[in-house]
Amino acid sequence: MLSEFSLISRYFDRPLRHDRHAALGIGDDCALLTPASGMQLAISSDMLVEGRHFFAGADPAKLGHKCLAVNLSDLAAMGAAPLAFTLALSLPEAVEEWLAPFSDGMFRLADQHGCALIGGDTTKGPLNICITIFGEIPPGLALRRDAARAGDDIWVSGTLGDARLALAGYRRELKMDAPMIEACAGRMHEPTPRLALGCALRGIAHAAIDISDGLIGDLGHILKRSAVGAALNVDALPAGPVLARAPQDLRRRFTLAGGDDYELCFTAPVSNRIAVLAAAHRSATPVTRVGSIEAGNRLRLVDAQGGALDLQLDSFDHFSSP
Amino acid sequence: MLSEFSLISRYFDRPLRHDRHAALGIGDDCALLTPASGMQLAISSDMLVEGRHFFAGADPAKLGHKCLAVNLSDLAAMGAAPLAFTLALSLPEAVEEWLAPFSDGMFRLADQHGCALIGGDTTKGPLNICITIFGEIPPGLALRRDAARAGDDIWVSGTLGDARLALAGYRRELKMDAPMIEACAGRMHEPTPRLALGCALRGIAHAAIDISDGLIGDLGHILKRSAVGAALNVDALPAGPVLARAPQDLRRRFTLAGGDDYELCFTAPVSNRIAVLAAAHRSATPVTRVGSIEAGNRLRLVDAQGGALDLQLDSFDHFSSP
Repeated sequence: MLSEFSLISRYFDRPLRHDRHAALGIGDDCALLTPASGMQLAISSDMLVEGRHFFAGADPAKLGHKCLAVNLSDLAAMGAAPLAFTLALSLPEAVEEWLAPFSDGMFRLADQHGCALIGGDTTKGPLNICITIFGEIPPGLALRRDAARAGDDIWVSGTLGDARLALAGYRRELKMDAPMIEACAGRMHEPTPRLALGCALRGIAHAAIDISDGLIGDLGHILKRSAVGAALNVDALPAGPVLARAPQDLRRRFTLAGGDDYELCFTAPVSNRIAVLAAAHRSATPVTRVGSIEAGNRLRLVDAQGGALDLQLDSFDHFSSP
Repeated sequence: MLSEFSLISRYFDRPLRHDRHAALGIGDDCALLTPASGMQLAISSDMLVEGRHFFAGADPAKLGHKCLAVNLSDLAAMGAAPLAFTLALSLPEAVEEWLAPFSDGMFRLADQHGCALIGGDTTKGPLNICITIFGEIPPGLALRRDAARAGDDIWVSGTLGDARLALAGYRRELKMDAPMIEACAGRMHEPTPRLALGCALRGIAHAAIDISDGLIGDLGHILKRSAVGAALNVDALPAGPVLARAPQDLRRRFTLAGGDDYELCFTAPVSNRIAVLAAAHRSATPVTRVGSIEAGNRLRLVDAQGGALDLQLDSFDHFSSP
């Protein structure tokens, strides 16, 4: 059994590279971060609990990736560039077979985005992983949820629903064979935070959010905070490659309310359509136009012909779900 | 049962006062913080787990205080001034009887220090409270663990051991009546972060740490990172008012290795003795001189007469303790 301090030094305490910002990392009462002059800090915390956000016995390398990815996705949704993060970890026991792949998976993604681990905490307890992430963005350019305007286009990045489809396979809600589950499971276990797109949309998009609890619920947050309504073309939603072959009803439900997508939903003025496509091209991220912001406060679901759809759907809520 | 969103809006989402720094609080993908120009950010995360850091059924108001206090104490130990914090909370169920006093206890302490809650996460799961705190400090003035120098005095703030004594009472390790436990329990449940002292010691102290796992272990971190040794006068350690009446052996053990004290241990050059006392006076915080930093790498425990003491003591380790 490792001690708390050897655990930290063995798996988490890496020399800070010649980092622009982190002045002092792991091993003191606090980390020290020197923000670039004039920049705002974007800060987000996500807590992932075993049995709730991931299965007991989940692959630790993928889990390391995912815990950081969901936080990076929050930075992406603000248009912020990653700087650093802290990791607080509650573990039933400190075993190498878990810690080594977990930290590898996490650092692989961190290194892709130049995001340094600068501090945190470890304790014994039920498995719980809490990352707090720090990014930077020039003042006034953050993509806020309250900035959608009537007339804006609604866009989503990438594809939706394959993570939810994998979950349905694991839970045997649907009859899916192992290769089919495997084909969509990558979206569930190792989501891709859309950081390049988020930064490229600064000054072009109005509002943005990352789709973690399902598009319908997350778009709902934009509508509520911006005091607007929307028409959403359900049949325009880009389904993941596996889900795209599924029946229409399933496709509609899982693209609308699937959860765990970690794509961006954003709004932008019609006059910025070309600029949005150019930002998508620059960031090598596909985007699809899926609806319009409207006056009022209703979210109208429509089909490809513009006809009203009445689907019973709910977004995920951690305290009302079983 | 409250939903996740009504839980947040009811108990945790308060309007940001005309805050110097927090530009955007709860309710978006990230909070936005605007650091004062030229200041460094000090960042710390602490995770508190039920059954590990606090008893199941612990008073939620005191717990709200304590969770924030231990983070504020980390800022104090760097000499940083608090700005803001995030709260990630895993709860078995969302009930008002717990949430209302918990948030009251937390905000009462937050308001005393002008520290705004700017974001976080809530989820269902075993009770786990993870706070990440942000403070500011002018570059170069942080009180780091690696800055102790041979010849420095060693100081501690306040008194030590009463929190450990309360724990011994709760656990029936010692025969203590209820009023006696009560008399020392405040130190365990509602520690006082020494923020005013930490700031007052900028430019005066060399190294500092907050005493969370017991003086001997926490001073050990300073020694290791500063590559120095020390002589610690065990009989000079200021015992809490209840512990002060206990037998010498118990007093020595609990002041040295009690844990949960949240006092500061710091080192300062002998030439700054008067400046240290003036800083203590300005911050209305008692301080006691308890030893000296020495060359080498040993921590020598001595009694009031300077004679060597050989005490078997261990600092708390989350993964080697039962």
